[in-house]
Amino acid sequence: VAREAGVSQPTVSRVLRGDPRVLPDTKARILNAVEALGYVPASAGRNLRTRSSGQVAMVADLGNPLYPRLMEPVHDVLAEGGLRMVLLTERDDDTVLQQHLFDRSVDGVLLTTTSQGSRLPRELRRRDVPFVFLNRYLPGVSADRVVADNRAGGRAVAELLLGLGHRDIAVLMGTREASTSQDRERGFREVLEARGVALDPRRVAYGGYSHEDGVAGFARVFDRDRPPTALFCVNDFVAVGAMNAAIVAGVDVPGELAVVGFDDVGLASWPAFSLSTVHVPVADMARTAAGMLVDRIRGTAPHRPRHQSYDTYLVLRNTHGRPRS
Amino acid sequence: VAREAGVSQPTVSRVLRGDPRVLPDTKARILNAVEALGYVPASAGRNLRTRSSGQVAMVADLGNPLYPRLMEPVHDVLAEGGLRMVLLTERDDDTVLQQHLFDRSVDGVLLTTTSQGSRLPRELRRRDVPFVFLNRYLPGVSADRVVADNRAGGRAVAELLLGLGHRDIAVLMGTREASTSQDRERGFREVLEARGVALDPRRVAYGGYSHEDGVAGFARVFDRDRPPTALFCVNDFVAVGAMNAAIVAGVDVPGELAVVGFDDVGLASWPAFSLSTVHVPVADMARTAAGMLVDRIRGTAPHRPRHQSYDTYLVLRNTHGRPRS
Repeated sequence: VAREAGVSQPTVSRVLRGDPRVLPDTKARILNAVEALGYVPASAGRNLRTRSSGQVAMVADLGNPLYPRLMEPVHDVLAEGGLRMVLLTERDDDTVLQQHLFDRSVDGVLLTTTSQGSRLPRELRRRDVPFVFLNRYLPGVSADRVVADNRAGGRAVAELLLGLGHRDIAVLMGTREASTSQDRERGFREVLEARGVALDPRRVAYGGYSHEDGVAGFARVFDRDRPPTALFCVNDFVAVGAMNAAIVAGVDVPGELAVVGFDDVGLASWPAFSLSTVHVPVADMARTAAGMLVDRIRGTAPHRPRHQSYDTYLVLRNTHGRPRS
Repeated sequence: VAREAGVSQPTVSRVLRGDPRVLPDTKARILNAVEALGYVPASAGRNLRTRSSGQVAMVADLGNPLYPRLMEPVHDVLAEGGLRMVLLTERDDDTVLQQHLFDRSVDGVLLTTTSQGSRLPRELRRRDVPFVFLNRYLPGVSADRVVADNRAGGRAVAELLLGLGHRDIAVLMGTREASTSQDRERGFREVLEARGVALDPRRVAYGGYSHEDGVAGFARVFDRDRPPTALFCVNDFVAVGAMNAAIVAGVDVPGELAVVGFDDVGLASWPAFSLSTVHVPVADMARTAAGMLVDRIRGTAPHRPRHQSYDTYLVLRNTHGRPRS
């Protein structure tokens, strides 16, 4: 192919890897030669030679609508680096997951759904597989990490609701094992405790991260005889689920119940919801984490793990208000 | 590993592939042996021997919220078959896409975003790479195909709206190159033509498949001086986008404007929208297509391509109504 196109062999490799650093003219010449010769490099042969697969695994949870939003930017950054994205999910049996990650078919791993009991991060470290924590992390495992300042976000929501005069507050959190949910809850509780406001355990529920979890959570914490006046939700999907359950229950938001979400995903700004929430720069975080992983794989990253925490801030729309007196 | 666990070599391979057809006891014995010996099969070596990668590519469009809903069932069926899912997106440069698909790093391909001008299906056929069309297809390319009866769905929407008395109807369709959008529009127009009802070209817009496309589409087809009384949308995300735009514009749905979507995805049933739409069994379709591809890869599929078309039907909720007289 190099001879046919009149270029060097490394240039051909660059084009076939999808590396953007090749002039369009040269690229066209190489692709014409590739087509004329019907040449396709066999990836398996390449793997044994370079000990690299050109693939990165992203471990995600497809049941949580946040993850598709992380996937697109990760995919794009990897593609710019000539890497493909293999999608593995939490639903994979832990053993299957480990086999896929340790058989050298991937050059690195993006972990986005780490739970506190997970053995995977330590195994990756032990086997020297490059990886980056995105969104969730495991404290105590030394690795690159890109997260949002969830604790500050939780504190901001508590300040907002207390400032509006709410004292009877309900909370719908996520899984207890996720650092995101833990940190959001911790920040929220810190402020309540500092102000001497108690959180009734019957008004606190733990669940997942989907619309359905919000619908189910509303039923668990909204007691008609002693209704809460405000509801803090672990993310926007749960908040919107709770708002839809409130419509069915005939509970006016925010008149009877203030609702605050977290993440500021697209549907929070839809006029039908206009949800007050905490902004998390999810796409920026995903791009940064993917870039860190590419550097780590290429060996151009510093030896020390890098920790990047993104600021979060309140976005005030129409679902917060004062309690009725 | 086989000796340590006291089982046959093929049984070990089955467990490492994630094949569910192994007794739990046997599986535990093998995994203990794997752990004790620290054994990991090198995928690249395996590839050269078996000429199989254990990977399937799914070509999807991450910008369209329908695709994550296809991914989860596809992932699960492939995992049951011991195969992994590599995610490639429409955003990949066509050449990069072809290199990834033709370098033997995948055993088969699920095409979900085929557009009418795409050369990919013919190239896959020419190079004997097994593939299945899911959701969209290319007429004239002989291959396995799993689709919904979109034309019947489009006809049903037209029958509904005409039956309610609507004559001033606007339409928001998708890309002109997608068989899904084409078939939905064709069915819809067939019924209108048969009844002698004209569709004003100024009330027909083409765009994408997201909420944002619905917001933009509403602005293009809703003329305040001569408002349409009904709006048919290519999918539910577009319909909900149009409904949110209607809230901002102060247009009452369905009082002033009936809205009908397509697909019956989760948010159509949310009480905030309660969207009348056409049901498409997306998860069943995805599972069937993934199963067909697994059979095709294993060589257990019939030589003739299989075409499966799923029935669609109207789901009547609260966004259709008679025009104001």
